[in-house]
Amino acid sequence: MPPCSVRPVDETSRTREAVRVYIDSAEQRDWQRLGDLLTEDMVYEMPQSRERIRGRSAFIQFNREYPGDWHLQARRIVADGRHAAAWIDARVTTEHQDACVWFELSDDGLITRVVDYWPESYDPPPGREHLVERW
Amino acid sequence: MPPCSVRPVDETSRTREAVRVYIDSAEQRDWQRLGDLLTEDMVYEMPQSRERIRGRSAFIQFNREYPGDWHLQARRIVADGRHAAAWIDARVTTEHQDACVWFELSDDGLITRVVDYWPESYDPPPGREHLVERW
Repeated sequence: MPPCSVRPVDETSRTREAVRVYIDSAEQRDWQRLGDLLTEDMVYEMPQSRERIRGRSAFIQFNREYPGDWHLQARRIVADGRHAAAWIDARVTTEHQDACVWFELSDDGLITRVVDYWPESYDPPPGREHLVERW
Repeated sequence: MPPCSVRPVDETSRTREAVRVYIDSAEQRDWQRLGDLLTEDMVYEMPQSRERIRGRSAFIQFNREYPGDWHLQARRIVADGRHAAAWIDARVTTEHQDACVWFELSDDGLITRVVDYWPESYDPPPGREHLVERW
């Protein structure tokens, strides 16, 4: 152990890099590279629709088959030990949507769980106009 | 600087603790403690409704006035230098909704920007039943 009162960031750096490559390899449709980041028994969840995909193979197929000319770009990656979150700018042709994605990594630095949120636009409820500005 | 090739985690630990207290003090309606975490010119954004609140004072008022018997619990906090993300379990009486919240901190460890996403439930689109299970 290094003689300093800090947690080694090797694990955090490895996690951050795995998430960076996850987004980039999906954007590039490089399924081999994406698959190499994942444990074989990884689990992917979309809590908004209560959908779960089990296993690397099904998850890669899900991405391969996902319709539309979709594009992903990281707005921010936050890594912390074996956990991370990614704030993603997703576009399908001219439609834009942000995603919030939560990651868990295995002992050996592979992604073992991904939880994806796709928040939709909504109209602000009444009663807070005195506090907010719109953009 | 400590003699090791790692980034000191003091900043990350401070960020993680600020986010923990942010959630806890909101849950406790301890507005003084919540305000003490924030820069005076902090900005709060809800991209789904394109709403922005400028300043600690208006942000505290927004929380004070927020209707319903709401409760917040951290599911996960991920901190990374001056950035963090929180995955929050929010409840209003029996209604449950997850939130994804992104934080930026100032030089002196105060929260200076908060971006809140409130993803809603949706029905899964057709065409992926062969890959997913529901819960």
